[in-house]
Amino acid sequence: MIYFDNAATTRPDEEALRSAAEFTTDLYFNPSARYGGGFAVSKKLGEARETLLKTLGGTGRFDLIFTSCGTEADNQAIFSGGKRGNVVTTAGEHAAVYSSVNELKNRGIEPRFAPVERDGSVRCESILHLVDEKTSLVSVVHVNNETGAVNDIGAIARAVKQKNPRTLFHSDGVQAFGKLSFVLPQEVDLYAVSAHKIGGLKGTGALFKRKGLALDPYLFGGGQEGNLRSGTENTFGIVVFAYAAEKKFKTVRSDLERLGKMREKLISLLDREIFTLLSPEKGSPYILTVSAVGMRGEVLQRMLWDRGLCMGTGSACSSKNRFSRVMTACGYTEKVLDGVLRCSFSPATTEREITEAAEILNSTAREYQNTVLQSRA
Amino acid sequence: MIYFDNAATTRPDEEALRSAAEFTTDLYFNPSARYGGGFAVSKKLGEARETLLKTLGGTGRFDLIFTSCGTEADNQAIFSGGKRGNVVTTAGEHAAVYSSVNELKNRGIEPRFAPVERDGSVRCESILHLVDEKTSLVSVVHVNNETGAVNDIGAIARAVKQKNPRTLFHSDGVQAFGKLSFVLPQEVDLYAVSAHKIGGLKGTGALFKRKGLALDPYLFGGGQEGNLRSGTENTFGIVVFAYAAEKKFKTVRSDLERLGKMREKLISLLDREIFTLLSPEKGSPYILTVSAVGMRGEVLQRMLWDRGLCMGTGSACSSKNRFSRVMTACGYTEKVLDGVLRCSFSPATTEREITEAAEILNSTAREYQNTVLQSRA
Repeated sequence: MIYFDNAATTRPDEEALRSAAEFTTDLYFNPSARYGGGFAVSKKLGEARETLLKTLGGTGRFDLIFTSCGTEADNQAIFSGGKRGNVVTTAGEHAAVYSSVNELKNRGIEPRFAPVERDGSVRCESILHLVDEKTSLVSVVHVNNETGAVNDIGAIARAVKQKNPRTLFHSDGVQAFGKLSFVLPQEVDLYAVSAHKIGGLKGTGALFKRKGLALDPYLFGGGQEGNLRSGTENTFGIVVFAYAAEKKFKTVRSDLERLGKMREKLISLLDREIFTLLSPEKGSPYILTVSAVGMRGEVLQRMLWDRGLCMGTGSACSSKNRFSRVMTACGYTEKVLDGVLRCSFSPATTEREITEAAEILNSTAREYQNTVLQSRA
Repeated sequence: MIYFDNAATTRPDEEALRSAAEFTTDLYFNPSARYGGGFAVSKKLGEARETLLKTLGGTGRFDLIFTSCGTEADNQAIFSGGKRGNVVTTAGEHAAVYSSVNELKNRGIEPRFAPVERDGSVRCESILHLVDEKTSLVSVVHVNNETGAVNDIGAIARAVKQKNPRTLFHSDGVQAFGKLSFVLPQEVDLYAVSAHKIGGLKGTGALFKRKGLALDPYLFGGGQEGNLRSGTENTFGIVVFAYAAEKKFKTVRSDLERLGKMREKLISLLDREIFTLLSPEKGSPYILTVSAVGMRGEVLQRMLWDRGLCMGTGSACSSKNRFSRVMTACGYTEKVLDGVLRCSFSPATTEREITEAAEILNSTAREYQNTVLQSRA
């Protein structure tokens, strides 16, 4: 099985699982407990926190709140950060941000959505156009999860703060974290990440928070995480996450370069009479989105699965409507939207998989044309 | 090490971990993915959900929303259920409910706290006294996590609904689930449970929701969990949870009986010149809370740890203030409050551990008297 749906989730890293195994056996204590066992677990959580902060150069500048997923981190940023006036985001956001911002209107706050470009990215001016003196929060996804388009969140955050210094800036970094090499810009106040997209476990995420920024808790209770996220910490998941992240960042640049070449190779091997490239050429090397125009991506996806190639049709999280909201916002026709397929890679992806995947994609799409489309005719 | 802090957290069940191990290796797919791997994981989640519903006789009558912890389940119940007028709860609640209800006043909703009895339980009349036509939600803990007092939530819920049929009834069942044998009463609308208190992993909880009850999501995003809890499901944690719960419920009655006897034995072995019983005689057999009156529970706790006995001083989740809020609400003097120690058991607890623990408790407390108290004199 060639697994090219790493943007949906990844296979947990075996080393990371092993490194944290003791938290499921001997180190099971509650980190809030005030005896040896509790202190030991609490110390390890602190180390995991420092490890994660370090990956983005956040040590000393940022705090880190462990959450149960990227979605929770995004929700906390939106609902705790966007408390008045209006909140500006883009039409290209993951549902965790998009739906949360949309929900704000039920709470007396005006949601504003900036349009996206054809490749899913947002222009800085499109954001600035919507920011005014009443904007409490701006949220811009770092890497678009459906196209791989990379937004220059540092530049956008700076421009936003120039226009309104009181506006908070949040970014959903789920598809960037552990994949791009970067230091968190000082103008970014909040940054959401997830473990299971980089070899960690489902059920763990984190929110980077600029030091000194006062934020409301989103879960209320025992006061864990500096009173910003109550609930007993997912110790096993957190330690797996820190290990997986540290490992990813060790090779983040070389992986980036290697995957960039593989992605180019896949582009070059795909039958361009069938597949139209939707991802930007300079997008994240981890994501390549194409459309088999005129075909049904969903049907193709299942045919590909049967042939040993596993890939997505867009966001695995919002697969209820026929067309992807984000890809629709990019301005494609229904014929293009129907045929969307997303290949998403991991550092474990091999050249051989790229070659094989291209062959499977080309032959399966041709088969689809010959059978499904013929039978309709 | 004798581990008597099972109300804080439990050692994960090895069989449960093994039963779910494939979700960290081969079955890592995103359950929202619409191909074979995703369907397989999604199916297993459905089975886990049914398993959990069945444990409380909830099949067909209740739905189940997987959350990241008991705290999140409580938060969703409080914030999504208590949307208008006033919300009634007790002074004996876990912080996950207490702090959430308290937060409601920042949202224009009046929090009302019923006093508790000496043993931590709440009288039905104390609740009813606060319920009126504007009460949107009542929340009463099933088993008090600090004293083990059991509230008859079925009777209280019925009485509440008689007074105001539009009032929702929620119960925090974290210390009851997998420990008491009961069927969820039909008058209970919402019921929060947690995995790591019964051999599951930290990072998994669930909210039972009466079928037909419309509830707001608390996390917004991709629409998982019937749009009631977005975020990629913690598949590994969920399957571990279902396994551990099913296992617990298989022997829930015999465990209850056996632990009841052990708890009585521990009571009989404790030096009553030192230890005052705070738990009700007919409380949960899983919890025995005493006070070493005049001593500092926290100091004793560390001395006990050094002597191989691990136990709590109350709720591990709210260990910031000198005195427990709940025990204070029970009406004890500072001398009693200072000396609080909580023994909490699991089905793995043995008679030998009970005998040994009693000896360690008695001798350590005497040593404390001879050294710490003498040195003060």
